[in-house]
Amino acid sequence: MLYKTFKILAPLCTYTAAKKKNFSYIGAAIFGTGFVAYSEYKRNAEMAKSNIKVDKFMAEPITSLAQLNNSSDDMKTKVELMIMRIQAEFCRALEAEEDRETKFIVDRWEREQGGGGITCVMQDGRIFEKAGVNISVVSGNLPPGAIQQMRSRGKKLSDGHLPFFAAGVSAVIHPRNPMVPTIHFNYRYFEVTDRSVQWWFGGGTDLTPYYLNEEDTKHFHGSLKKACDKHDKSYYPKFKKWCDDYFFIPHRQERRGVGGIFFDDIDSPTKEKAFAFVTSCADAVIPSYIPLVKQHKDDAYGYHERQWQLLRRGRYVEFNLMYDRGTKFGLHTPGARYESILMSLPLNAKWEYMHKPKPESLEGKLLEVLRNPRNWLNTEEAK
Amino acid sequence: MLYKTFKILAPLCTYTAAKKKNFSYIGAAIFGTGFVAYSEYKRNAEMAKSNIKVDKFMAEPITSLAQLNNSSDDMKTKVELMIMRIQAEFCRALEAEEDRETKFIVDRWEREQGGGGITCVMQDGRIFEKAGVNISVVSGNLPPGAIQQMRSRGKKLSDGHLPFFAAGVSAVIHPRNPMVPTIHFNYRYFEVTDRSVQWWFGGGTDLTPYYLNEEDTKHFHGSLKKACDKHDKSYYPKFKKWCDDYFFIPHRQERRGVGGIFFDDIDSPTKEKAFAFVTSCADAVIPSYIPLVKQHKDDAYGYHERQWQLLRRGRYVEFNLMYDRGTKFGLHTPGARYESILMSLPLNAKWEYMHKPKPESLEGKLLEVLRNPRNWLNTEEAK
Repeated sequence: MLYKTFKILAPLCTYTAAKKKNFSYIGAAIFGTGFVAYSEYKRNAEMAKSNIKVDKFMAEPITSLAQLNNSSDDMKTKVELMIMRIQAEFCRALEAEEDRETKFIVDRWEREQGGGGITCVMQDGRIFEKAGVNISVVSGNLPPGAIQQMRSRGKKLSDGHLPFFAAGVSAVIHPRNPMVPTIHFNYRYFEVTDRSVQWWFGGGTDLTPYYLNEEDTKHFHGSLKKACDKHDKSYYPKFKKWCDDYFFIPHRQERRGVGGIFFDDIDSPTKEKAFAFVTSCADAVIPSYIPLVKQHKDDAYGYHERQWQLLRRGRYVEFNLMYDRGTKFGLHTPGARYESILMSLPLNAKWEYMHKPKPESLEGKLLEVLRNPRNWLNTEEAK
Repeated sequence: MLYKTFKILAPLCTYTAAKKKNFSYIGAAIFGTGFVAYSEYKRNAEMAKSNIKVDKFMAEPITSLAQLNNSSDDMKTKVELMIMRIQAEFCRALEAEEDRETKFIVDRWEREQGGGGITCVMQDGRIFEKAGVNISVVSGNLPPGAIQQMRSRGKKLSDGHLPFFAAGVSAVIHPRNPMVPTIHFNYRYFEVTDRSVQWWFGGGTDLTPYYLNEEDTKHFHGSLKKACDKHDKSYYPKFKKWCDDYFFIPHRQERRGVGGIFFDDIDSPTKEKAFAFVTSCADAVIPSYIPLVKQHKDDAYGYHERQWQLLRRGRYVEFNLMYDRGTKFGLHTPGARYESILMSLPLNAKWEYMHKPKPESLEGKLLEVLRNPRNWLNTEEAK
């Protein structure tokens, strides 16, 4: 067993607990009744005196409430609470667009080597074919491979197993209707302790439409630019280009989608300011995306459009399995929970030999933009 | 443009030519009429005096007939003719199981840097959902990355761009009916010229069932063992274990299928004997697999079995895109034709979050074998 998930111990408890916002299932699942009573009592007492209102979250935080309350000035705590809030708000915003009977299932899991995560998945809904919103808060020692990879990005790190802390929220939403684009975002904080503590933020939000809607794309990019501009006017053009460069499928010479923003290794101007920037980006997800869902979720489409969507989902799989750094880093981290990492894969995908849409078709017009990314907001180009 | 394919130049010519066994389309596609007449005359004259009967092949060989006729003792020629024959025989055997109107489409392509290939694909048939049978004969200079990778496997090679030759046949057949397993095979010959010429053979055949049929699995392994035993009794147990080790999905801790044989770097006892062994293996594909197609292609199945097949095809995609050396080597070779490499991907695949079949179900029983490979023929275990 590479990871411990409470779901395995008590399949119903996790879900029920998360829904009822009564986080007493850990004791109930593992220990006998006598202990449960005490555990529950202690936990309720802890929650009562906590400054952190956990009942708004999808499940109990990974770090204990006592520790979170006692270290509210620590960036690790701030990030954990921010990603918990973003997860819950986004899940609720998606559920509000879905049929009433379709809800997120919530899996809270722990990692033997330290930390854990909360994976929320909605599958086979009328509006969302597959939606995954994940948070993870993990710590331990970096394996040599990960250190190597960070060095290749310019980090100065010693040899040996260095202690690290990583916390992030990530989501991939694959709607049913081909007129609603897929969205992906990920915001994360990383700390590694060598001689001193090194820290940085990374993240991004990007859109993968199946049919190009210029107005939607401009709205999406506009929302991200607004979030960036509040902090640094140079951010949007720089991170827009980074996104176009990152979500590239070399063997097909095309991008996964119409981009957005992407950045890594943000460690300036100050820790607090970097955190405020990342928080703004994460807060921009709902206003950038939910209006597109509302507007197109009931658009008409047919067999042809569905087939094209499935083929594009095949490309999504190619990018995620072959090139995405997050997937690779995730799957190579000891004790990784592969089900949470691979939740990004679509429910259905298709590969046809030599599928070539006509250039003048709607499908061909999307391909044109994936091959030659546009400057959607006519901003000054990043160098 | 990374590669030149005659299909792009003359979409109909390639197909027609291959079907009619009249290989005059090259001239017709590229040059004017006057030249065509001469080119066709010259080609027909060449074919008439050739010892090689190309009309049995799926298309004209990649290497010119003149060169093949003049170097019939060269291993490069022997391998090219063998893989052309295997491709044609296997395609015909598959077409014989399919509805009459469904045939392989044949794409003959050339590579700017030297050589080319013949890709045969049958898609969306009643019996075969996707079937790809590919040959390639390529030469050029090895990129440094490939040299590095070969060194890590123990090859002694200098720095710099070394001339290489590679020829192989590979196939992946995804039948429609979940009771018919997917088969993959690949047989290849490699030469690299450093101070002297180094050469080796590699290959294998493996089976990926959706429902375990012990008798079929024993028949399949038995056919491969028979082919191996003719050459060296130690081969089957050794290459069976190599196959189980190779087709492994680490993050899922399960194998792709029930195995078969797999080997690389075969350079003994002599070049001729190694070639004879690989030829026997390639000749064993039809008797190992076609009886399974015949027996199960009309078996009854329902929605449940189809869904399970699609989920297992998702695992197939995971292995091929994340771990398969052939796919990686292929996509990183300059001028690679990605459509031919990715023809191995199924027409349809599926990913469900936390799909866990019950251990006592038929799906659970397959998983048990994928987690703990069996010694199907009760042979002595390889060390």
